[in-house]
Formats: sequence, C-alpha cells, structure tokens
Amino acid sequence: MISKGKMSSIKMLHQKKYRDIEQKFIVEGTKSCLEVLKSSLEVLETYVTQKWIFDNAKSTPFSDLFTIITPKEMESISCLSTPPEILSIVKIPTYSISEFKKDKPIIALDNVRDPGNLGTIIRTADWFGLDQIYCSENCVEFTNPKVIQATMGSFSRIKIVYGNLVKFLTENPERKKMGMFMEGAPIETIDFEGNEILIIGSESHGISEEISQLINQKIHIPNYHAAINGAESLNASIAAGILLYQFSSKKRYKLS
Amino acid sequence: MISKGKMSSIKMLHQKKYRDIEQKFIVEGTKSCLEVLKSSLEVLETYVTQKWIFDNAKSTPFSDLFTIITPKEMESISCLSTPPEILSIVKIPTYSISEFKKDKPIIALDNVRDPGNLGTIIRTADWFGLDQIYCSENCVEFTNPKVIQATMGSFSRIKIVYGNLVKFLTENPERKKMGMFMEGAPIETIDFEGNEILIIGSESHGISEEISQLINQKIHIPNYHAAINGAESLNASIAAGILLYQFSSKKRYKLS
Repeated sequence: MISKGKMSSIKMLHQKKYRDIEQKFIVEGTKSCLEVLKSSLEVLETYVTQKWIFDNAKSTPFSDLFTIITPKEMESISCLSTPPEILSIVKIPTYSISEFKKDKPIIALDNVRDPGNLGTIIRTADWFGLDQIYCSENCVEFTNPKVIQATMGSFSRIKIVYGNLVKFLTENPERKKMGMFMEGAPIETIDFEGNEILIIGSESHGISEEISQLINQKIHIPNYHAAINGAESLNASIAAGILLYQFSSKKRYKLS
Repeated sequence: MISKGKMSSIKMLHQKKYRDIEQKFIVEGTKSCLEVLKSSLEVLETYVTQKWIFDNAKSTPFSDLFTIITPKEMESISCLSTPPEILSIVKIPTYSISEFKKDKPIIALDNVRDPGNLGTIIRTADWFGLDQIYCSENCVEFTNPKVIQATMGSFSRIKIVYGNLVKFLTENPERKKMGMFMEGAPIETIDFEGNEILIIGSESHGISEEISQLINQKIHIPNYHAAINGAESLNASIAAGILLYQFSSKKRYKLS
C-alpha cells in the first residue's frame, strides 16, 4: 500500500531540484536495488510488485523491509519507460576528499554533462577498482536517473565528490595531473606513479582552458591505422575506458 | 519549400519498416550531414533552415543542392528532441563481404541491440581505422537514428554487412576468432596476427553459446585492482573500445 501523497513525493525526486532539497534519489531494477541494499548506502524505502516477490523472494533476505505496490503504482513512480519490479529511495551519500586514499588515483571529470557518459565512467572505474572520483560543479549529478541506470549498481561503491576542480587540482601538488589532448604523448608510452589525477573532459569541448594549464602530462590515444579523414574524436567514456585500462594494466605489471 | 506529402514520407523513415522498404535513412546535424556529403554514400535530399545557411554558407560548397525549410518543418521531420538545422536523406549502402580486405581485421557483433552501443562501436572502429564490421541478423540496424547519432559521422566510412554470423565465421577458417569471456586470457598477453575476427557480444547476454563454440581465443579484460564485490561487467562498447585499442596498439608495435 502506498498513499497518493507518498507517490507524489517520490515522483518529485525525478527532478534535480527536489533531489537536492530532499537529499534522496531513486534506484530502479533488481540488479541496482540489490547492490544498493547490500552496500553501505542508506536505503530509506523499497517498493516491489507481487511479481518481484514471486520471482526473487527465495534469493533475497531483504523482503520484510519492502512495501508491495501494484504495477500501475510502480509505473507512476518510475523514471523508466519500462517500469521495473523494484524501486528504492536512497539517501544521497556525502563524501569528502579527506576520504580519498593518498596512494590511489583519482578520476577527475571536467564538465561531463552527458548522463550516459558519467554512468559508464562510474561503472568502468568500479571494474578497475578505482573508487575515487572528483567532479567539477558543472558535471551532471550522479543521482540523475540516467546516470544511476548506466552505472549498473556501481554508484554504490564509488566515492564521488563535487566541487571546484581548479581549486582541487591546485591543492594537490603531490599528485601528477594527466589529461587527454590531441597533441599529447601516445598513451602506451606513459608510466603511472599510481596516485595520479586522471582528468576526463567533456564530449564536445574536451578539457577546459583553465584546467589545461594545470596538467603535467598530456596524453593521446593514437589512431595509427586510421585514414586521414577518419573519426575526429572518441566518445568521452571510451577514452576514459582506455585510460583506466592502461593505468590498471601498467600498474599491475609494476606491482607484480 | 517542402510539401506535406514529402514531409510525411520523410517521417515514415523514422520507422525501420519504411527504411527497409524505401532503402533510405535520415542523417541529422551539421557534423554528420557534412561527413555524409563528402563521403561516397548517395545523398538524395538535404534540408536546411535559413539559420544554417547564414551560419555555414561560406564554409560549405554544397549549398546549391539544399532545400530551405522552416524550423517548424524541420521539427516535424526530425527524429531528435532538439531538431537540427540540417537533415539529409541518404540511400542505404549495401556492402558485401567480398569487399572486406583479407589482411585487415573484422569486427563481428553478436546480437548487439542497443543503438548507443552499436553507434559508439562504429565511431571507435573508425578512430582506429578498422572499417570492416559484420553484424549478426539480430543486431540493431545501423540506419536507426540513435545509432547514426552516436557514430558522429563515422557510419559514412565503415563497411557494415548483416548476415548469418555462424555461417560467416565457419566460412572464414583462415581468420582467428577472438571474443571476450570471463574465463579468457588477460588481454595484455594476447598477440594479434592482424586479420582476426574480433567478436563483441551483447550487453546483457555476452557472446551466444553457438558463437562461443567457434572461438579460437578467449580474451578477458582483467580487473586486477577491483574489490571482490566490484562491477560484474563492462559496458559492451567500453569492452570493444579496449579490445580495439589493444589490437591497434599491439599491431603498431609489430609494424614499427
């Protein structure tokens, strides 16, 4: 059972403005909800359909905390065009840079506005065990439903801090700052110390002028085999994926 | 000037069914339209707004082929939520596997249904100069507007053939077949001959059972640094991006 008032208050969380006021966000689908339920994040409410209980009750220990609602009610509170069978309301976690480990790298995002790109970068970072992300204030917020969807549950394991990226870079002189530029050195030739700040720019504008001046090492993903008139750029999350892979792979060889 | 009948016939191309019948598809936005206009593809019609002419007439030699329409008419024929200032109707190219170069790799896609993933894979392939893609029949068609949008013009340079993937793999015994599997060898340890078939599976199901049996080399992108409960998988286009990067990088070192 869910009241109309409750449904309205959940629907308001579809909008950034109300997520900011309420400090809550929506997580949908079995994979993401089970991930967040077993994480350290604070799950405030979980709604499921009868079908979800029928399909999953045996495999999950959380069912006594759930509120059963109808598919129609689920459709009404969901952000998705195909409504899920389970939906959780989660408290927005607030991380601070003091939690960032000094011997691990930080991924820094400069004006990444596309929710799919941010979500995919969070998922990829999680795959490579890199759990520290710093976002400039103009990045899309990670509680955006499209970001959450694209992370496939990885949002629950990554520490994401938003703030003034210029200030953050300036205040961390001991960490080398690396970013992708067309005129950068080939990525295969780069050595990593392990505590770098790896900076990803926006899909359309790359790394901003102000941030560029704080970069110690410019990197490039070479397109050796491309014809002269080939693609002008890579998708931002693909470039990030290759950078995180190369970091992870090089560091592994150093450690082993 | 554009007639109502013409507008209706363009709007029908939003649907796969009519693209198949008419053998035409829609390309939108300045970057994609200019790329297709300078490519070998057959552009049948191009519509622009006055604003586009004003902004671009000096920089493009194609303007005498364009039909000027109003922003409202553009909104009506566009597939995008934010209509572009330029839209072209293009004949669907038909490539055959006899055009595939024997000494270059082929990217094979098994049941890739997500338009964003297919578009991003096409764009990444173009970046690395790999222009031969074979799609199983159940892949999303590359003329889907969301695919075209995600390729950022790269669709105009890549030969894409659809067909029976099992048959295709069986009929190309001279090419090594590589694919991503959790139990595969670490990708850094793989040597490439240069004419491989690099197989990418679907986001949700990976490479299908039938195709798995035809693979000669299983590959894995290691998550050495990940915590035990990290991400279960990478996004399909990220995995493809890392594979194409690694191929391109290793082959460069062999060639140089």
